[in-house]
Amino acid sequence: MNGAQALLRTLVDAGVNVCFGNPGTSEMHFVAALDAVPEMRGILGLFEGAVTGAADGYARMADKPAATLLHLGPGLANGLANLHNARRARTGIVNVVGDHATYHKQYDAPLESDIESLSNTVGWTRTSGSTEALATDAAEAVKVAQSGQIATLILPADVSWGDGGIAAAALPPPVRPTVAENTVQAIVDVLKSGESTVILLGNVGTRERAIRAANRISQATGAKLFAETFPTRIERGAGVPALERLGYLAEQATWQLTDVRHLVLAGAKSPVSFFAYPGKASDLVPDNCKVHALAEPADDIAAALEAVADIVAPDVEPVVQEAKRPELPSGDLTPQNWVDVIGALLPENAVIVDESNTSGLLLPMATAGAPKHDVLTLTGGSIGFGLPNAVGAAVACPDRPVICLQADGSAMYTASALYTMARENLNVTTVILSNRSYAILKLELQRVGAESTGPKALDWLDLSRPNLDFVALATGMGVAATRATTAEELAEQFREAQAKPGPHVIEAVVPTLF
Amino acid sequence: MNGAQALLRTLVDAGVNVCFGNPGTSEMHFVAALDAVPEMRGILGLFEGAVTGAADGYARMADKPAATLLHLGPGLANGLANLHNARRARTGIVNVVGDHATYHKQYDAPLESDIESLSNTVGWTRTSGSTEALATDAAEAVKVAQSGQIATLILPADVSWGDGGIAAAALPPPVRPTVAENTVQAIVDVLKSGESTVILLGNVGTRERAIRAANRISQATGAKLFAETFPTRIERGAGVPALERLGYLAEQATWQLTDVRHLVLAGAKSPVSFFAYPGKASDLVPDNCKVHALAEPADDIAAALEAVADIVAPDVEPVVQEAKRPELPSGDLTPQNWVDVIGALLPENAVIVDESNTSGLLLPMATAGAPKHDVLTLTGGSIGFGLPNAVGAAVACPDRPVICLQADGSAMYTASALYTMARENLNVTTVILSNRSYAILKLELQRVGAESTGPKALDWLDLSRPNLDFVALATGMGVAATRATTAEELAEQFREAQAKPGPHVIEAVVPTLF
Repeated sequence: MNGAQALLRTLVDAGVNVCFGNPGTSEMHFVAALDAVPEMRGILGLFEGAVTGAADGYARMADKPAATLLHLGPGLANGLANLHNARRARTGIVNVVGDHATYHKQYDAPLESDIESLSNTVGWTRTSGSTEALATDAAEAVKVAQSGQIATLILPADVSWGDGGIAAAALPPPVRPTVAENTVQAIVDVLKSGESTVILLGNVGTRERAIRAANRISQATGAKLFAETFPTRIERGAGVPALERLGYLAEQATWQLTDVRHLVLAGAKSPVSFFAYPGKASDLVPDNCKVHALAEPADDIAAALEAVADIVAPDVEPVVQEAKRPELPSGDLTPQNWVDVIGALLPENAVIVDESNTSGLLLPMATAGAPKHDVLTLTGGSIGFGLPNAVGAAVACPDRPVICLQADGSAMYTASALYTMARENLNVTTVILSNRSYAILKLELQRVGAESTGPKALDWLDLSRPNLDFVALATGMGVAATRATTAEELAEQFREAQAKPGPHVIEAVVPTLF
Repeated sequence: MNGAQALLRTLVDAGVNVCFGNPGTSEMHFVAALDAVPEMRGILGLFEGAVTGAADGYARMADKPAATLLHLGPGLANGLANLHNARRARTGIVNVVGDHATYHKQYDAPLESDIESLSNTVGWTRTSGSTEALATDAAEAVKVAQSGQIATLILPADVSWGDGGIAAAALPPPVRPTVAENTVQAIVDVLKSGESTVILLGNVGTRERAIRAANRISQATGAKLFAETFPTRIERGAGVPALERLGYLAEQATWQLTDVRHLVLAGAKSPVSFFAYPGKASDLVPDNCKVHALAEPADDIAAALEAVADIVAPDVEPVVQEAKRPELPSGDLTPQNWVDVIGALLPENAVIVDESNTSGLLLPMATAGAPKHDVLTLTGGSIGFGLPNAVGAAVACPDRPVICLQADGSAMYTASALYTMARENLNVTTVILSNRSYAILKLELQRVGAESTGPKALDWLDLSRPNLDFVALATGMGVAATRATTAEELAEQFREAQAKPGPHVIEAVVPTLF
């Protein structure tokens, strides 16, 4: 067995049986080993940002890591932006980054670069030094990834092609620590104080089990609940207790936290402004508010919330969202009505990947009472996450419809993910919200107080000369595509996309909100 | 004047008057300042890899740096692959990377990441600590870039928006050091030894002035000349002495260097294999060959070659390539005939950006006697350089036709550069060599000795399910596009593209060479 074969066998035995990749010469033995280890599913991406974003989406929905295969430093670099999002999502990924043979590095060949410094910026890094050590390095990488971190295994070509590889047994997967009883009691005391309290839910705290417990606490104590602004995965819809997200704009969040005296963190970080703005606070916690940690992101958040609920609300049942859909709207598409089409027609058991940005501000209301679904959001702010995450979610959940709601400007960073959807015939309906501008930056240009907004500045935020034609772009990558300019067209095209298997793109021409 | 305005004024005063950018919130004051400093031309890219690649192509043709504007760590990360190519090309670029406000970084907001560790992998880095210091930091960054390095200036938002900015005067630009007389004499002695000698030209050693001097030396001494495998910019065609490149495949280069006893480096590095292969040497210098350095890449290479020529070949005139074009071929396109179409029809004074990869192996022969032109090549091996470099070359040389010869797989990394071509109405004719596979990897899979090449491995190198439709992709980004399957069609479409201003894409459907 060569190193690559031992590596793949070790990954598969540890439950990592999907690899998204974009290989080069130094990864050819890994690619060849795909045939020797048939349990590993290899999925090609045409650009590494699509590869890493797919691994992120996969992990969010499969609750276990995928592997990626990347080509040296530049391949890793191309994947870093979506690895940044995965780091913020705390999704585990095992990156395998091919490198030059150990003895070749001294020659500073053209593709030589400092891979470790790149991978250190997103997480754990190990350069595997020998074919013998490779499998145990891989088993450790899997364990790190299972704990919700990015694990990067740098694989020199000769370590990969060398003989003498031996598969390593899987390490025991990490377990989420149980929150201590006195921590639970301290939060109970806060909740019983009668003072205005907010519980901020993050990480797996935005999954149904945790939300149900938090809802019981809220009913019994009057504490308000919010999900963190950009949850990794939030379960919502009919049958799940409603859970509002903390606003993206600092003004919104400040309003939501007005007069709060206690902020209880359950898997979330203390809220800060996404960006700094002249003269505005970065820390969004009100002045007289104390912050308390019930559970860290890595803890068993649901169990901690249940422990609190069993003390403060032993006999309370969660109040769940009732089924309720908006009416199907009519007329030209607007930022107000396209979301109602989605809310009215969202299929059962859907996964929504939401990078609709400014076009989607009203989406949560429109889908609140739709059938139970998951929403994956832009955790790290690095745009271009939507299409790749939809690929990964669809691979993880082949029996669930994936709905990708994708802003146009952001779509262009990783558009080749559409090709992977076509190649793998993934059941993804992508709605491109085509407002033909970097609309959020038009807003931000004002919010940061840039005094001059002359024609050259505005021109940089404009995507209308020429217009991008997403029907042509999707078709060019093998994905069936249509364009909707009215709510009726969007509804008809969305229904048709749901009725037919495989990927579809609908370009929804929606004006900007601002 | 705020910091951003002082920064832009300083850049412009130092001759940096083009900025390729893809901004976000933290860069809004820089964007706003574009109107206050009208001499700066701002050019939008839809993805950072297209931005940095454009800056590389610009610098190769303008012989001076452009600036880039990038959004925090993920924006820089997206640009790193083409910065890697620029580092290997030794083209200077001034990256301005927006960062969170200095006081905001402590909050670890979602987009916070380690920007300096990323930029350190490609070159000089400075985080500007105050509005007052910003302009002098920028002047220093320009000077670093003028020396052929990547200079990254990290710009915290509050440093950008702060008042009290003062533009800084340009620093004296670096001058290429003259090679010492005794170094010249040592090379003269080598050349006079009568032993088999090769002069390897790199950096500006592949420009006409240096090639003419090297040609004189070659005539007088019998020394063979080669250009480095992937030159930053090579001047060639009718009227310029012919200069063969060292082969990409180690087997080729080894053959070219057979029995050579002296290798003289003039701006080039000593040749090494691009990748390692089991059982094959990495160092391509033959066993009994001595390596001598006439000029380092940063030296005044042309003057050094002229100094040698004036001693060994005082009365010799360079022999230049005669004008000679291939016949226009006919029939279905092949890897053998498409290059003849280009050779037959290459316009006067063209710039060729060559990322044709395996499809272009025969290109140098077909264009050898075409009108004088420049060729820019993939210096760092990080694919996706072609379309962005063509953008930059066209911005630098608005009066020259730019011909981008682009492999299909590589095109997909930075395809959105086509949108910038449309937006700026750049005079670029792009020929996409559509062989519907990662053809080079099919070759490399054999060359690295991967014993098993089963169906899963081969599937990862295949781009034919579905086929990419580059006519649709280009049209979707506003670029007129056609498809050619015969030599006659390619010739007709290429002529038409030359006759009309603005960008054109021709998808040339060419089978793989292997």
